[in-house]
Amino acid sequence: MIYLDNSATTKPNPAVLESYRHISEMMFANPSSIHQFGGESEKLLFKAKDQASYLLGVSRGEIIFTSGGTEGNNLAIKGIALKHQKRGKHIITSTIEHPSVYNTCNSLESLGFEITYLPVNEKGEVSTKELKSAIRNDTILISIMHVNNELGTIQPIEEISQIAKKHPKLFLHVDGVQGLGKVPLSLDNSGIDLCTFSGHKIHGLKGTGILYVKNGTTLFPLFHGGNQESGIRSGTENLAGSVSLVKALRLMKEREKKELADLYDIHQNLRKRLEEIDDVKMNTPCQNVAPHIINISIPGLKPEVMIHTLGEKDIFISTKSACSSKQKEESKVLAACGLDEKRTTSALRISLSYDTTKEEISCFLEELKEAIQQLKEIME
Amino acid sequence: MIYLDNSATTKPNPAVLESYRHISEMMFANPSSIHQFGGESEKLLFKAKDQASYLLGVSRGEIIFTSGGTEGNNLAIKGIALKHQKRGKHIITSTIEHPSVYNTCNSLESLGFEITYLPVNEKGEVSTKELKSAIRNDTILISIMHVNNELGTIQPIEEISQIAKKHPKLFLHVDGVQGLGKVPLSLDNSGIDLCTFSGHKIHGLKGTGILYVKNGTTLFPLFHGGNQESGIRSGTENLAGSVSLVKALRLMKEREKKELADLYDIHQNLRKRLEEIDDVKMNTPCQNVAPHIINISIPGLKPEVMIHTLGEKDIFISTKSACSSKQKEESKVLAACGLDEKRTTSALRISLSYDTTKEEISCFLEELKEAIQQLKEIME
Repeated sequence: MIYLDNSATTKPNPAVLESYRHISEMMFANPSSIHQFGGESEKLLFKAKDQASYLLGVSRGEIIFTSGGTEGNNLAIKGIALKHQKRGKHIITSTIEHPSVYNTCNSLESLGFEITYLPVNEKGEVSTKELKSAIRNDTILISIMHVNNELGTIQPIEEISQIAKKHPKLFLHVDGVQGLGKVPLSLDNSGIDLCTFSGHKIHGLKGTGILYVKNGTTLFPLFHGGNQESGIRSGTENLAGSVSLVKALRLMKEREKKELADLYDIHQNLRKRLEEIDDVKMNTPCQNVAPHIINISIPGLKPEVMIHTLGEKDIFISTKSACSSKQKEESKVLAACGLDEKRTTSALRISLSYDTTKEEISCFLEELKEAIQQLKEIME
Repeated sequence: MIYLDNSATTKPNPAVLESYRHISEMMFANPSSIHQFGGESEKLLFKAKDQASYLLGVSRGEIIFTSGGTEGNNLAIKGIALKHQKRGKHIITSTIEHPSVYNTCNSLESLGFEITYLPVNEKGEVSTKELKSAIRNDTILISIMHVNNELGTIQPIEEISQIAKKHPKLFLHVDGVQGLGKVPLSLDNSGIDLCTFSGHKIHGLKGTGILYVKNGTTLFPLFHGGNQESGIRSGTENLAGSVSLVKALRLMKEREKKELADLYDIHQNLRKRLEEIDDVKMNTPCQNVAPHIINISIPGLKPEVMIHTLGEKDIFISTKSACSSKQKEESKVLAACGLDEKRTTSALRISLSYDTTKEEISCFLEELKEAIQQLKEIME
């Protein structure tokens, strides 16, 4: 199998899965139980949180374990909106956010919130100038993603943070899901108040995630209950999930340190060779992009047919994000970048991991060329 | 180890854990990915949902996979509240609900909702008469638990359902977490619109759960995003979690069928022998209770000291629910039943599973008696 859909989900690292299995079997006590067995579970939870905070460069109390990226984004956005609505009901986001941000902001309109969706340029970048002029007295939240999940474009988070810092009354949330372990992002003293991470995008397990919540940031919890996770996220702690997530995070950070340049090499090589194919239009910009996502269009070819054809050869790529791939229409992200309908309805996303090899890329390219030829012949 | 804290959490069944491991390793594709690998994951997800619906006697579309009981309760309550608030902002619950219901209702007060907390009698039963008179024109939701997590008291859900049915505009939510696999509860044609279940209380894994949502019931989702789970619960599906949960459910239902009478026997025997101990006051009523929970008080003894003493012998019991056990004060549930402070501040909960043996109970009782003696001597 050549798996090039790593932005949708990654193969769990065997060591991560083994850690999950071990903890589930041996340390099953409820960390909130006051007996010694519960105490041991709780100790391990604290240890996991310590490690996570060390790896992310923040403090322990700023780590909230969640069930994943969608929960993190919803908790951050609705949490701020519902808690701070008396101060204002205006939120700023962009037109190319992941559905778990875009649709969450959208849903708040039915609760009386007003959302400004910032446009992006042809590279998929938010304009900081536009952001500045969008900020109002009643703006309580800016939510901008770090790395776009379809294009790989890196947003100017540092500049955005500097702007946000000048408005101490509003909160800045960053969807950090696609960038983690691939594009550095500093959290401490960054001006970022909330940042979402997901386990299954970094070879961790589905159903695990972290929301960074800067000290002093108050949220209306999505889950009320037993006041676990500092009261921000009640519910019996998924200890095995959290320990395994921290392991995935540690392993990812190690690979980022050692193998990031190699990944960029593979990415550049793939890009170059894709551009050499006549029918391929490159959508991912050439600079300021993550090392694991390349988006192309093959105008005239239906992306689902191409995906199916490659799938027959055990090669897996995708169209849009998995979270919007069931909708047959155009890519909203590419449309927001101003691409024409031929491009927005024929997009393919190839997403790599540190496990992707040069041989796999060569094989993929051969099969892609053959598939293009084959499908063109059928259509002629 | 003699583990008698099964209402806090249960030991995962090895077959359930193995199923999780297997799916995580082999079927890691995102079920929303449109390639063949994603399609296989999706098929398995549908199969899991089919099985869950069969086991719970409902239809497939009525099963929503969640991250657990706290999420289920919050999604049901906040989902109805935020979606149907234009119709009314009054909610009825009881004074002895689990914190994930009680505190959730409470939190809605800050959003302008009005909550009626029904009192209970000395057995911990909600009065249906009181319920009837609490219903108003602007009542949109009744949320009552099936089995109380501290006492084991079974609520008159059928009568409550009959009352709710007479008010077709309001929704009935049942927290079914403690009853699942131990106390039968019919969902189909029951008048129940929403019912919460949790995986880790039935030897499944933490971070898994089901919310039953009756066809036609609309909710404001807690998680917006990629519209997974019929749009009610977005987020990449935790396929391994859901498959393992359905396995746990099937195994639990089998044991319920075969071993429920045995569990009631052990429960009755434990009750009788506890009542023979001079210093023990029985809090769990003698009739209409679940087969796995017994709550006692030993007035004058601090429960945390007793728990620690038994813990030294590798015997684990609890005080209140794990979700409120970190608060040192009295049990709110026992206080709501009208018990005096000596009883409410000295409560112990012994909670069984189908794995609990008569030998374990005998051993526990011996150690309990010895501990009472020992602690009394220290205090004299």
